[in-house]
Amino acid sequence: MRKNYLLTPGPTPLPPEVCEAMAQPILHHRTPQFQAVLKEVTEDLRYVFQTKNDVFILASSGTGAMEAAVVNLVSPGDTVLTVEGGKFGERWTELCAAYEIHAEVIKVEWGKAVDPVLIKEKLKDSKPKIKAVFTTLCETSTGVTNDIKAIGEVVRNTEAVLVVDAISGIGAIDLKTDEWTCDMVISGSQKGLMLPPGLGFISVSPKAWKLIEVSRCPRYYFDLKTAKKALDKTDTPFTPAISLIIALRAALGMMKQDGLEAIFTRHKKMADATRAAMKALGLSLFAPTAASDVVTAVCAPEGIDTEKLVKTMRDSYGVTIAGGQAELKGKVFRIAHMGFIEEFDIILAISCLEKVLAKMGYSFQLGVGVGAAQKVFLG
Amino acid sequence: MRKNYLLTPGPTPLPPEVCEAMAQPILHHRTPQFQAVLKEVTEDLRYVFQTKNDVFILASSGTGAMEAAVVNLVSPGDTVLTVEGGKFGERWTELCAAYEIHAEVIKVEWGKAVDPVLIKEKLKDSKPKIKAVFTTLCETSTGVTNDIKAIGEVVRNTEAVLVVDAISGIGAIDLKTDEWTCDMVISGSQKGLMLPPGLGFISVSPKAWKLIEVSRCPRYYFDLKTAKKALDKTDTPFTPAISLIIALRAALGMMKQDGLEAIFTRHKKMADATRAAMKALGLSLFAPTAASDVVTAVCAPEGIDTEKLVKTMRDSYGVTIAGGQAELKGKVFRIAHMGFIEEFDIILAISCLEKVLAKMGYSFQLGVGVGAAQKVFLG
Repeated sequence: MRKNYLLTPGPTPLPPEVCEAMAQPILHHRTPQFQAVLKEVTEDLRYVFQTKNDVFILASSGTGAMEAAVVNLVSPGDTVLTVEGGKFGERWTELCAAYEIHAEVIKVEWGKAVDPVLIKEKLKDSKPKIKAVFTTLCETSTGVTNDIKAIGEVVRNTEAVLVVDAISGIGAIDLKTDEWTCDMVISGSQKGLMLPPGLGFISVSPKAWKLIEVSRCPRYYFDLKTAKKALDKTDTPFTPAISLIIALRAALGMMKQDGLEAIFTRHKKMADATRAAMKALGLSLFAPTAASDVVTAVCAPEGIDTEKLVKTMRDSYGVTIAGGQAELKGKVFRIAHMGFIEEFDIILAISCLEKVLAKMGYSFQLGVGVGAAQKVFLG
Repeated sequence: MRKNYLLTPGPTPLPPEVCEAMAQPILHHRTPQFQAVLKEVTEDLRYVFQTKNDVFILASSGTGAMEAAVVNLVSPGDTVLTVEGGKFGERWTELCAAYEIHAEVIKVEWGKAVDPVLIKEKLKDSKPKIKAVFTTLCETSTGVTNDIKAIGEVVRNTEAVLVVDAISGIGAIDLKTDEWTCDMVISGSQKGLMLPPGLGFISVSPKAWKLIEVSRCPRYYFDLKTAKKALDKTDTPFTPAISLIIALRAALGMMKQDGLEAIFTRHKKMADATRAAMKALGLSLFAPTAASDVVTAVCAPEGIDTEKLVKTMRDSYGVTIAGGQAELKGKVFRIAHMGFIEEFDIILAISCLEKVLAKMGYSFQLGVGVGAAQKVFLG
């Protein structure tokens, strides 16, 4: 017998309602039955994205949706701004390079949030003018949340559009797409939306559509003009990932029932509890300021290899958390508190972490982490 | 109560084993557990594709895999050859146009297979030299199967690579990737592989890799060099569509157990039975020569609107077949016999077709279609 618990920042665990939907017999996509589903999820995505804009569903991972943003908005030779504060911020720069788009890069120390003033200055000073600002809501690799509201304020009155990679974050923490003037918001299915991976999402503002009209990057599968024509007829340009969309309906239904406010409060509480536990255990957060409410990155204690820690928790006890990515490999571990995860999942994860830390020779009082988390949840 | 029967050329019905796999709790993709699955399906895909080449799994629909073929093989300004005998052949030309690749087009009358001699001549005469030949195994829109073996023979000793869209066909009819020297074979999950849509597949020969090395089309999500680096470490460059890959393992397991020969025989028998039934009903095939063993396109009898026929079968009786696409809308209907479909599904579909034809005033002897199919299955 082995019971598995998943606390990784994507994929996140699936609710039984989603598993059930995934198992349903397949529907044909060019039928009124599927069109009704597509209409419903497109509307419900607007609720979760907090937008009146169209939200497109792509059969791709989140990276596919990021590529869709780049190739639809700008043209080879254009100048854009990318914010790199981790592995996923760097992906924007890599995508731009692939399409010969000149990216001005703001390099942010890993573990810190970007200062919106730096974006403001780049937008003012850069020649030629910056056409788009590519940012990240939650930098999953470092556990940082950027202040998209403040960034929206500095981008709003310029000619540039604001693009937000909210792959980690949508449906877990607040992102007011319209109020904060985010012109494109990207997401994926396997995070806050509690689904398996395989769907990408992208919302498009009227300001973004104007750029799309004149963009000359080559594209076909990810072309948003084709997608728009199809969506206006409640259709998709290519065969959609039907089962995942049926499951999306189930997940969005659950989210609407709880309401975004309650969801955000739950995530904040789990994050607070996790951070309190780490502090009680004498561990330091990798991102002490701007710590994300969807994933907590924790520095390895002296002499503890986080790769081994993560492996032992997973292979010996069935509790899967994440190690460090790229330059943080072996240096941090990451506990996700996002999607279909709640209070007692956090408690069990901390308990397992304590068990393995103790076995690895780290010195602390067993139970202090769990106790600190319990105190937050009780309060 | 409404029982649904699906006989469409994608998606095709799901076996219970696939539904069950789809419903499983999610695995994290960067774990030895998932790596074992990835290794197994990559090997089993080689069996189904009849190849020793790498077969890559993309989180996309089949069209995404077609785009991957184009953008990895050639460069803007290159000359290629596309064969257009229906909606899906035209997609190759559209993809090339999107990337400013010059496509010489062989236009084949819809309902006919391409004459390989025409390809041979184009390869000989075209200046600049043709770098790639983009073809279709089964043109789903017309119900035609092209002679890929013969095309392989004319392409083999040229500098051009042969690319085959086998989205409809793989795992249903014979396609000997290596023996017929198909340099890239594209497929999708929702046809012969009996899965929901959301996975694209692409096999790559050593001859194709040489072109990939020098191709200058921009790409990121669909970059095969990145995919190859990851696959060599039993990994994927971006988050894979985990649930669909778990389900793929189940489907491929079933296919290996039956064996390709038995699968091809079953499909041929179903196609023969369907064609015999149509003939007995006095209906004519849209593709009397080169008729595909995965889908049969049938011309509408005088005075019968196939859109209405398909809608009535589906909405009144729960039997979903397909209408005509693009210029064939209203003119043909299509019965799929592909994937998890067998003898008695064909019988019930013909029986439902007879019922609706009779109600629509078409004159024939009730039961002759069913009887003709039964005769084929008994033989």
